[in-house]
Parts: sequence; C-alpha cells; structure tokens
Amino acid sequence: MDFSAELKRHLARVEQGIERHVPRGDTRPARLHGAMRYSLEAGGKRLRPVLVLAAAELCGVTDDAALAAAVAVECVHTYSLIHDDLPCMDNDDLRRGRPTAHKAFDEATALLAGDALLTHAFALLATSYAAEPAVAHALIRELADAAGSRRLIGGQMEDLLAEKKADATSQDLEFIHLNKTAAMIEASLVMGGLAGRASPETIASLRRAGRHLGLAFQIIDDVLDATADSATLGKTAGKDARAGKVTSVKLHGIDASRRIAQEHTAAARTALAGAGGEPAFLHALIDAMAERSK
Amino acid sequence: MDFSAELKRHLARVEQGIERHVPRGDTRPARLHGAMRYSLEAGGKRLRPVLVLAAAELCGVTDDAALAAAVAVECVHTYSLIHDDLPCMDNDDLRRGRPTAHKAFDEATALLAGDALLTHAFALLATSYAAEPAVAHALIRELADAAGSRRLIGGQMEDLLAEKKADATSQDLEFIHLNKTAAMIEASLVMGGLAGRASPETIASLRRAGRHLGLAFQIIDDVLDATADSATLGKTAGKDARAGKVTSVKLHGIDASRRIAQEHTAAARTALAGAGGEPAFLHALIDAMAERSK
Repeated sequence: MDFSAELKRHLARVEQGIERHVPRGDTRPARLHGAMRYSLEAGGKRLRPVLVLAAAELCGVTDDAALAAAVAVECVHTYSLIHDDLPCMDNDDLRRGRPTAHKAFDEATALLAGDALLTHAFALLATSYAAEPAVAHALIRELADAAGSRRLIGGQMEDLLAEKKADATSQDLEFIHLNKTAAMIEASLVMGGLAGRASPETIASLRRAGRHLGLAFQIIDDVLDATADSATLGKTAGKDARAGKVTSVKLHGIDASRRIAQEHTAAARTALAGAGGEPAFLHALIDAMAERSK
Repeated sequence: MDFSAELKRHLARVEQGIERHVPRGDTRPARLHGAMRYSLEAGGKRLRPVLVLAAAELCGVTDDAALAAAVAVECVHTYSLIHDDLPCMDNDDLRRGRPTAHKAFDEATALLAGDALLTHAFALLATSYAAEPAVAHALIRELADAAGSRRLIGGQMEDLLAEKKADATSQDLEFIHLNKTAAMIEASLVMGGLAGRASPETIASLRRAGRHLGLAFQIIDDVLDATADSATLGKTAGKDARAGKVTSVKLHGIDASRRIAQEHTAAARTALAGAGGEPAFLHALIDAMAERSK
C-alpha cells in the first residue's frame, strides 16, 4: 500500500464531494454561499472526511456511497471552526494562513455561514440517502449526537469555561478532549461504517478506534502548540498557554503527554484490528497523525 | 369549538413537550443547557409548534405522535432568535420583556446555545421517530430544507443585506418574507401532516396554507412595527424604519400592506379547506393571527 498515493486519492475525492454536494458560491444569496464555500475550500487536513471514506472502504464500499457522509462531516467541522474563530470565542484573524470568515466577510455573514453549514450537513444526508431512509436516519442520528450539546458543543463550552478556572482537573480535560475533539473523529469512522452497512460489532470497533484516535490527536495538538513554532504550525503557536487553556501539557507536562498520546495511538490500532477488513491505510493514517509536526 | 380553550390545550402540550424533549438545565455543561432552556422558556406565541400539533390533529393524530416534531420546530425558531439578537446581527438587549441570551449569559454562551438548539432539533427527530425511520427521515428533510441556506438562513442574510440597499425591490421583499418567515411556518404545518402520515395531496395543501399564513404573518408584523407602540408590542416599535429595513410598509404603505395580508389570510383558509379534516381550530388561529395587535 502506497500511503501517500492513497491519501491523495481520498483527498481528491473529498474535494470532488464538496464541489458536488455543497451549493455553488453564486447560489442566492451569493454572499452566504460564497462564505460557506470560502471556509470549506480553505483546505486543512481533511482528516474527518478521509476517515469516513477510509472506514467505508474498510467495510467494502468501493463506490461513492460514503461521499455525501464525508462532506456532511466536513461541513460540521468547518462550521465549528467558523464559530470558534468569532470575536466572542477565540477571536482568531487567521486560519490555515488565510483570513478567517468574519475577517474575509463580516461577523454576521460568518455567523450565518456557520449556521448554514451545520444545517446543510443534515439536509445533505437526508437528500443523498433518501432512497435508503434507514441509512439516512442512522447517519443523521450519529452526526446530531456527536455535534450536540453533550458532545462537540458541550466540549467547546467547557473549554471556554476552563480558561477562567484556576483549578481545572484532569477530569475536566478528559471531558473537553473527549467531546470537543474525539466526538467528531469517532463519528467519522462510525459514519463510514454505517455507509458501508457494517455490523454492530464492526461499528463498535470503529467507535473505540475513533475515540482513541481523537484523544491522541488532541493531546498531540496540545504538545505541538507548546513546542512548535508558528511557521511550522501554520497558526499562532503558544496560544493555549497565553489563553490560560487547560491542556494536556499544562496538567501532565510534555513528556507524559507524548506517552499518553502513544498509548491512545496504540489502542486505536488495536481497536481497528477488530473491525475486520484491510486496515493498512487507516493504520498508516493513524501513525501519520501521531508523528505529525503540524 | 372553543378557540381559547383549544389554544390553551395546545400551548400546555408544547410546554410539556419542551420539558420532556430538551435536556434539563442542570445537564453537563449546565451553563450551556441552562442558556438553551432560558431562551426556550421565555415563551412567546408558540405559533410554530401549535401549528405542528394542530395540523397533526387535522390529520387524525390524537396522541403525542407530533409532539417531538413540534418541539424540534420551536428549537429551530428559538436558535434563530438567539443568533438574530446577537450584537453582530440585530443587537437586541430585550426579547419578550426579558434580557436576550447574550445579555443574560454572554455572547459565546448565546452563540453555542443557538448552535446546540439547532443541532438538538435534528437529534430529537432522529431519536423520537427512531422506530419509523421513514417518518424520521421525512421530518428531518423538511426541517433541514426550511432552516437551510436557501430558506430561513438565506432570508436572514438578504434581510441584513437589504438594510444597506437603497433600492430594495418588491422581489427582494418577497424573497425575505418567503424565506425568513414563511419557510418555518410552512414547515410547521407540513411536519404536522408528516407526523400524521397525511397523503401527498394533503401535504401540498398544508404547504400552500403555511406559505400564505407565513406571508400574512410577516406583513402584519411589518404593519405593527410601524403603527403600534412599544408597550403594546412587548418589544421596541419602529425599529424597522430606523434600521432602514425593507418592509412591506416601506414598499407598499400601511393600507396596501393590510390589504395584501388579508388576501394571504383568505388564501391560507382556502388552501386549508383542501387539506380535509376538521379545520375549525386552524381557521380560528389564522384569524387570530390576522387580527393580532402584537
């Protein structure tokens, strides 16, 4: 398996999927759809939609049956970044080296573009899987739970609250990491499985793998924020400490954080082995995430 | 039919539905769920969820089969108000006589509470109608379309853009009214019909009735903003003109606006007659909306 060729293949499909499954930037109202496209097309790792496609392939999907699910996941991820960047949240001017949505447009447009991407994710699943209401239903339920007030949004809320908390604990950190980050990574692998009509046992294995991968991913993010320079990172380094955020580095230090991340990476690989199929690409992707420098 | 007793019965069911179908305010993270509840429990007319319940009864539903759909619609309506009130949008401090969410909490919490209510609407439909994936799917598809970038959010975007436009036309106004207001009122009647497993013909009649009712509702809103005082209205009167908004009053004047609203009200009644069932309550509700003073 040629990892970089396979990754490139998946990434190309994600771009095609966005092109196919998101309204064009000139659809009325053009300013709104333009802002949605601007943020979606800013790129990034595309980790979540690639996980959807790779999990679907693991379950035997060789056609485009998982593509709309991959795009829906990326729409939700992008909405969460747009809202996270707003002045009342992290107040970031740059994302992936480009002006954030509220800088390129304005705050109201960015707010509405985020709302619209979130709503579009559900509309897209309902429309693309209309011929199979049971699959549509399972995908929507998984995504709505992962993105909801107890998971993604709940994690963002507690992340904000922890900034003002001098005595944030490792339980607080676990809640934040599990929900702010791992929820959507877990949902990505699960939705790939659902699109591939996987058995409940396979879905459970994918869920555990996603949870561990998500935790490893966020801990490595914390380490990189504390150790890399801004140029390597492509975003402002050292922001967490300045914002007083509760991070793995703050609670456990850099060495222990790296060790915990390695444990979660190993656990993700083991869980994935239980899902059946040919996991070579996903194993390599997990390793690439563990060894990344940005 | 005793209209006020029937309305009271529906309103009580909406409150029960919110109590049953939205996470309690002490669910972790309590600040987030508290803000969701605070905004939902501020009350208001509950027009949209009452329309869901009444349309379902028209289609023979006598149990709670439409209750979750009614709550989902109110969650989406409430999210749109929370985001609309934010400083970057209408910047309102008061809503229904109480501090708006970002005043009672803070901007970040209000933003996330809106996001969470929108997401919860889809989670609630997926969970409550899990035993009938086809019904769940139809409800979710209807709600996601009505709330999406071409309808509710698109209408809000064009409403904002029209403020800066000296030459807004009646076509602009129609786009805004049809999408900002009528989309969710139309979806409310349609979702009641879907929960009642109505025929495609009945759904089509409900859709036309909702469209006309929604247009009448918004035109009357425009007239009241221009003619009523703030005390009667329960919110700041005359805001539209000060904000330079394109309204029916601005384009057509007060008398012609009243006449157009009456035409839409009559058309809504006629469309409803085609839906079958016993429309006495819905007819009375349409009349009450046409004659309201706030």
